[in-house]
Order: sequence, then structure tokens, then C-alpha cells
Amino acid sequence: MRSVFQDELDGVSQSLVDLSKMVAESMKKATEALLGAELRVAEEVISTDEKIDDFQHELDSRIIDIIARQQPVASDLRALITALRMSADLERMGDLSHHIAKIARLRHPEVAVPQDLHDIVRHMGDATTKIAEKVGTVIETRNTNMALELEQDDDVIDTLHRELIGKLTSGSWDKGVAAAVDMTLLGRYYERFADHAVSVSRRVYFLVTGEFAKH
Amino acid sequence: MRSVFQDELDGVSQSLVDLSKMVAESMKKATEALLGAELRVAEEVISTDEKIDDFQHELDSRIIDIIARQQPVASDLRALITALRMSADLERMGDLSHHIAKIARLRHPEVAVPQDLHDIVRHMGDATTKIAEKVGTVIETRNTNMALELEQDDDVIDTLHRELIGKLTSGSWDKGVAAAVDMTLLGRYYERFADHAVSVSRRVYFLVTGEFAKH
Repeated sequence: MRSVFQDELDGVSQSLVDLSKMVAESMKKATEALLGAELRVAEEVISTDEKIDDFQHELDSRIIDIIARQQPVASDLRALITALRMSADLERMGDLSHHIAKIARLRHPEVAVPQDLHDIVRHMGDATTKIAEKVGTVIETRNTNMALELEQDDDVIDTLHRELIGKLTSGSWDKGVAAAVDMTLLGRYYERFADHAVSVSRRVYFLVTGEFAKH
Repeated sequence: MRSVFQDELDGVSQSLVDLSKMVAESMKKATEALLGAELRVAEEVISTDEKIDDFQHELDSRIIDIIARQQPVASDLRALITALRMSADLERMGDLSHHIAKIARLRHPEVAVPQDLHDIVRHMGDATTKIAEKVGTVIETRNTNMALELEQDDDVIDTLHRELIGKLTSGSWDKGVAAAVDMTLLGRYYERFADHAVSVSRRVYFLVTGEFAKH
């Protein structure tokens, strides 16, 4: 009986890894759609979000079913409750990629991001994609050093985000208010995506060590 | 034994009602701080957020402890898992009030909101505060009609939010880009606050009826 349960826990963990990969891919494509005004890619991200939602719902049902059947206590119960929280974070990351893709679609055939902000947005897109990939590895390997690294990776995103807001509010912005509104929302989406990734990574850290990750 | 368990479930429900009241109050004060540039009120909201977080952590630990000890199945387990999700939504609503208060504090002694947007922001503040209060009543009474009403209340917020963004991007905006960035973030915070309230209300609706609320 115990080994069936262990297989089930491993299955949950693997699904969380799969979900991380899906949202990493979704973020990568959303940024590609955004910077290239690629309508087809944007549509792909938007339709993938539904798949991510379905995947998460199936995973959550499975977790609740395991709790009901196996009646775990202590650390196993805690791991399953944490898995529910991680799946919620990952699903939300999918939503945020979806929001980015929707801005790309809304502005198509124009490019939503002014040319002189491409570098910073590409940087944010690359960094958030890497964070999501790393989160998958943290879940899979329970590598606490890598979990701590993610705190620094998030600092990079926060710095880029501040830089972006700085460019909007420096007084030399000449791209109009509508573009500033878009850029404010985009900055927020990238930042929140990274926050949720860090949240997942901290949950793994806590499960493994019983302590909160120090930042 | 069963009646102890029932008392525990009632206690969880009451704590969620208390949490709703705390975030409603927090949103009310955040809007007051924002429109009046009231530093003391902003500080109060900011420090209340920590209390909300502590309250939520205590509640979550209690819920997990109930699951571990009582080993509920079927509908009782589902209700407890749902309570965890509702507490996460409510905690997030507290964060969003906190974000609003932080903008008020950042711009003090200036008022962050330009005078001709006061009406729309006051309207958003009132509507979101009422939504949070109503959510408390929905949790307490399990009134499904009121849960459905919340869907319409959320539509009002979405309309106000669109109106706000429209004012920023209409071409007649003359308050500068920094103010537009603030207003974009503020609009987003109010909108997300309402989204989380609706999410809580939908969870109650589903627990009571076994069906998803139709919108």
C-alpha cells in the first residue's frame, strides 16, 4: 500500500514539473509574440492557457482524491497541500503569459513595445522563462541551492522592472500615454510571473528543510 | 466526535468571515488614504496587512490540522480544501489594499489621483469595499443568490476600470506619464481585488450547489 502511495506522490511531483515546463514555454512564446507582433504565436499562447487550466484542474482533483483515499498525516499531508498551492501558482503564471499574449494580439499588426524598450523586455522575457524552467528543476530535484538562486534571479527581474518604470517616468518618454499604460501592465505581468515562481521555489525549500528561505 | 468536528468547521467558516471583514475595512481605508493623501491611514493599512497575513497563516495551520486529525472524506474534505483556497484569495485581497496604500504613501503629501479622477476612484473603492463585505455575508449565510449578485457587482468594477483606462488613453490626458503609470497600477489593483472576491463567492456557490456559477 505504501508503495502505491509513494508512486502517487511521485506522479503529483512529475505533473508539477510538467506544468512548470508548460508555463515556461508559454512565457517564452508570449514574449516572442509581443516583440515580433506575431499573431499566430499570440493565439497559440492564448489557447495553451486553457490546456494549462485543464491540466491544473485534473492535477488538483487527483491530489484531493489521494488525500481522501490515503488519509496521509504530518509531512505527507503537508506535501500534498503544498502541491495544491504550487499548482495554483503555476496556473497563475500561465494566466500572466496569456495576458502578455493578449496585449500582443490587441496591438497587432503594430508592435506593442516601442523599439527602444525591446532590449529590456527581451531581457525580462528571457529571465522569467529561465526562472520557470528552473522552478521545474527545483521541484524535480529538490535542490535547495537552486531554490536559493531563484531569489537572486527574481532580484534581476525586479531591477529590470524598476528600470522599465524609470524609462516611462523619466520625463523623456515620447511614445504617448497608451503605450505607457501597456508597458506598465506588461512590466507588472512579468514581475508577478517571477513572484509566483519564487513562491513555488520557497514552498519546495520549506518542504525539504522545514525552514523559510532567507532572502 | 462528529459535533466537535462540526464546531471546528464552523470555526473555520467564522474565521473566513472575519478575514473578509478585515480586508473590506482595509480596502475602505486604503481608498480613503489614497484620495485624501492621508499618511496615517496609509500606514495603518500597511501595518494591518501583516495582521491579515498572520491571521491567514494561523487559519491555514488550523485547517491542515483538522484534516490531519479528523481525516474527512468527500464533501467535508472538499469544504476544507476550499477554505484553504478562500483564505488565499482573501489574503491576496489584503495585499492589494496594501499596494494601494503604498502608492498613497509614496506620493504623500501630494494626492496620487488627479482631481478629475477622484469620482471614478471613489466609486471603485466603494464598490470593491462592498464586494468584500458581501463576500463575508455569502460565506456566513451560503446565500447563493447573493453569490450570483457578486458577478454583476464585478461587472460594475470592470466597467469603471475600462472607463479609467479610457480616460488615460483618450488623447486628452495632460497629467503626465508618471500619474498615468500610478493610475494604471491602481486600476489593476482594484480590478484584481474584485476578481479574488468573485473567486471566493464562486467557491461558496460551488460548495452549496455542486455547480459552477453561470455568468
